[in-house]
Amino acid sequence: MKNNCIFCAIAAGELPSFKIYEDDVVLAFLDINPFSNGHVLVIPKNHSEGLLDADDALLSDVIVRVKKVAMHIKESLSCDGFNILQNNGEAAGQTVKHLHFHIVPRLAGDDLRFVSAKGDMEKLAALAESLRMA
Amino acid sequence: MKNNCIFCAIAAGELPSFKIYEDDVVLAFLDINPFSNGHVLVIPKNHSEGLLDADDALLSDVIVRVKKVAMHIKESLSCDGFNILQNNGEAAGQTVKHLHFHIVPRLAGDDLRFVSAKGDMEKLAALAESLRMA
Repeated sequence: MKNNCIFCAIAAGELPSFKIYEDDVVLAFLDINPFSNGHVLVIPKNHSEGLLDADDALLSDVIVRVKKVAMHIKESLSCDGFNILQNNGEAAGQTVKHLHFHIVPRLAGDDLRFVSAKGDMEKLAALAESLRMA
Repeated sequence: MKNNCIFCAIAAGELPSFKIYEDDVVLAFLDINPFSNGHVLVIPKNHSEGLLDADDALLSDVIVRVKKVAMHIKESLSCDGFNILQNNGEAAGQTVKHLHFHIVPRLAGDDLRFVSAKGDMEKLAALAESLRMA
């Protein structure tokens, strides 16, 4: 766990999140400034800053969870598609320096350009409830 | 190999590509309609349509190659950051129905919105030459 890392604090349960899925390797929760309805972040519990400093074995474990959560989101929301987005560096739009994979549900014709809006906390809480995995 | 799949044909060497890296699992080559300079696609040689129908073991092998190629691109181009983008379904902008990971180099302040321009083939050929991995 890294000091002053907001995602480490979320993974440790020291900060709240709209949790969707959790196991020994990852935590998945709603992005509070979503690109689209059901926008989820999947983070490894162990800290790395981005893709390049992440351990190969960890990355392998994480991408399998990303697939698992994405499958659940797609089925639950009946969206038409989804993007996996993983940003490295401020120049790439990475705002939290803890490796995370975005799962962004898409609808045909939404013409999304990955510009986020400020999230509505009540709606997010209800959505997280409906999406929580066993 | 899937019939009429352009990326299967590229992986099999039946169609040309601006190749950056190849091993037994993946092929990495320049996107010919790049979002930014050095935009690379990493594809598994075995066909799957997207993330959800890809085998877990294959995904694990592929994400490790994505990291390896991204590290090479970042060092070679001295870019400030990069995005990993993987699209699933037409609604998400997936144009070729063969699993692929985009590596999109970023420069501070480029304000990129993932809108591609038609590529210049001569410039792409020279760039591929300069980026080719041993």
